[in-house]
Amino acid sequence: MGSVESERKTTGLAARDPSGTLAPYTYDLRSTGPEDAYIRVICCGICHSDLHQIKNDLGMAWLTTPWSPGTYITSLSLSLSLIKLQSTHVLHQCLVHLFAVCSHEVVGEVLEVGSEVTGVRVGDRVGVGVLVGCCRNCMPCKSDIEQYCSKKIWSYNDVYTDGKPTHGGFAGEMVVDQKFMVKIPEGMSSEQAAPLLCAGVTVYSPLNHFGLKQGGLRGGILGLGGVGHMGSSDRKREEALDHLGADAYLVSSDEAGMKEAADSLDYIIDTVPVFHPLEPYLSLLKLDGKLILLGVINTPLQFFSPVVMSGRKVITGSFIGSMKETKEMLDFCEEKGITSQIEVIKMDYINTAFERLEKNDVRYRFVVDVAGSKLDGA
Amino acid sequence: MGSVESERKTTGLAARDPSGTLAPYTYDLRSTGPEDAYIRVICCGICHSDLHQIKNDLGMAWLTTPWSPGTYITSLSLSLSLIKLQSTHVLHQCLVHLFAVCSHEVVGEVLEVGSEVTGVRVGDRVGVGVLVGCCRNCMPCKSDIEQYCSKKIWSYNDVYTDGKPTHGGFAGEMVVDQKFMVKIPEGMSSEQAAPLLCAGVTVYSPLNHFGLKQGGLRGGILGLGGVGHMGSSDRKREEALDHLGADAYLVSSDEAGMKEAADSLDYIIDTVPVFHPLEPYLSLLKLDGKLILLGVINTPLQFFSPVVMSGRKVITGSFIGSMKETKEMLDFCEEKGITSQIEVIKMDYINTAFERLEKNDVRYRFVVDVAGSKLDGA
Repeated sequence: MGSVESERKTTGLAARDPSGTLAPYTYDLRSTGPEDAYIRVICCGICHSDLHQIKNDLGMAWLTTPWSPGTYITSLSLSLSLIKLQSTHVLHQCLVHLFAVCSHEVVGEVLEVGSEVTGVRVGDRVGVGVLVGCCRNCMPCKSDIEQYCSKKIWSYNDVYTDGKPTHGGFAGEMVVDQKFMVKIPEGMSSEQAAPLLCAGVTVYSPLNHFGLKQGGLRGGILGLGGVGHMGSSDRKREEALDHLGADAYLVSSDEAGMKEAADSLDYIIDTVPVFHPLEPYLSLLKLDGKLILLGVINTPLQFFSPVVMSGRKVITGSFIGSMKETKEMLDFCEEKGITSQIEVIKMDYINTAFERLEKNDVRYRFVVDVAGSKLDGA
Repeated sequence: MGSVESERKTTGLAARDPSGTLAPYTYDLRSTGPEDAYIRVICCGICHSDLHQIKNDLGMAWLTTPWSPGTYITSLSLSLSLIKLQSTHVLHQCLVHLFAVCSHEVVGEVLEVGSEVTGVRVGDRVGVGVLVGCCRNCMPCKSDIEQYCSKKIWSYNDVYTDGKPTHGGFAGEMVVDQKFMVKIPEGMSSEQAAPLLCAGVTVYSPLNHFGLKQGGLRGGILGLGGVGHMGSSDRKREEALDHLGADAYLVSSDEAGMKEAADSLDYIIDTVPVFHPLEPYLSLLKLDGKLILLGVINTPLQFFSPVVMSGRKVITGSFIGSMKETKEMLDFCEEKGITSQIEVIKMDYINTAFERLEKNDVRYRFVVDVAGSKLDGA
């Protein structure tokens, strides 16, 4: 333990031009510092934001994404089981470093730890999410909500404290500060854990922060990511009720249904990443109900002040979650047996996977078996 | 006590046509029911909403009100001392009953009480606010936030449970259910108490509900009602700092000042009753900061989702306050010695007062000395 090796190289798949095609790229990893762990990547989830990053198109892409309105009325447990649907939280910078190695939903095995690492041991399975650094001195950092630190460092497409670019999990190895690692619970598979590290905690965090984890609440999920391709609302209804376990399914174009559901929800998790009117959904909220936005939308959203005032309703948003919440969320999912619907692929399928992702043709999350793939010939 | 007199008549000043001119009107008061008190009106505050009611112009009027942007950075105590500025909460119905007798900031003296009245006694000074009835069975009613009851009954321009129109305080007497009365604290003058019954509690309620009464918070008041007429920002600055006791004054057109004040406020009470961009003010809020809308605005307001998400900021609104909060607020104001700037007038000045109010020519609230006025010749 505690040994600090000299710099090593690793190979990953990087965006080398804005075409979006990933190709092998070999780069230096920093030495394992006192607070760092050196990990071998086991698998990675693919997030929609990865697509936007590699194509350098964050912004316009949101505007052209197809979306048909649909609201899912759900129990809390469902909200959490639907975390797999959430994939559009991203507040990334628009600039893409060429040669950026993506993925911020990484599960790996610890190969080496620095001298001051206490949280993880060699051999542990660990997760790395959207962030790998923060200032540690600001109010958010001191309050364990480091995701709101203005000096946070993204897992990839950012610059680390040593001045070098950060690279994500589509690679053989990573070196990560222990603060930004969580242990994966024993009973949870690496493939199931991966999407929880970004998508999962993005939904868990606002439910936690806004006091929505308690029993007896009625929540809705707005937007069923990844199923735009399924086309018909009937198909979506079947998917929501039979496969995802929603208590109810509602389409916003169903006037009678919307009227009947007025004033019935304690909260709505709004995952829609394109402009949509808020009034229909605000009307579904009870007094003090909360509309929680998770989708980055470049067009301004609109609402009427009397609608908000007359029910003391809250429009708010949330951005991923803290490392503390990530730990809690993993334990929660293990305890409740919450799983995601994933499609496991190899690295040589990744460019096809991104093409399918662009067409929303995945139900609901690709997970890349990195350890079981060859890294030098995508 | 407990005697129930037969119906009595009273005379008030009523809107008899949409010209907005008030003229004497004599009407029946209901008998003093078991839960009612019969009161002699001492004085009434004039609220902007009264103007809209008598002119039957709620809606368009908001759009033509002059407004220049200005934000007041204040301590909590100032937020409360600024309650006098808040006058535009109104969610009234648009329909005006002709012969509506306005005013929902009424202080009166109890002349008679019903057999089951326990809260007030003959001779007490009491306050009546925006509401005089609610269903008592719904969740808001059972939670002591009856202002959100969907069957609430407005003090005037509404229909009471007996099927008769409700009339407000520009009149000699009123009959009001004890639930909608508060005792005025001993040490507070009737004229000072009147504006607190609507304007005061409208600001107090969100500070109370959203946990903003605690010390050490930094709040802003957006919009300095009644001073549009003062024209220059310098004059407003002087008014805010010297007369209203603000800790700081900021104009949103001052780019450098706005930049410097970014991320500095825990909340903003937004009293502006016309369309305004929210982005500049959202940027002033700290992480988890709250923008609380109190102005009824007919044009949709706009915001960008990333601005809200990146700081977990909250956009919300609030509508007057409960009777429970009204009681607390009166005690709070008495204890802290918070007073309003008022201009006391007689009933025969009321039409002139409304003309001046329309031009924002009042600093900051007219209070009508009803008991000291002749009621039959405005």
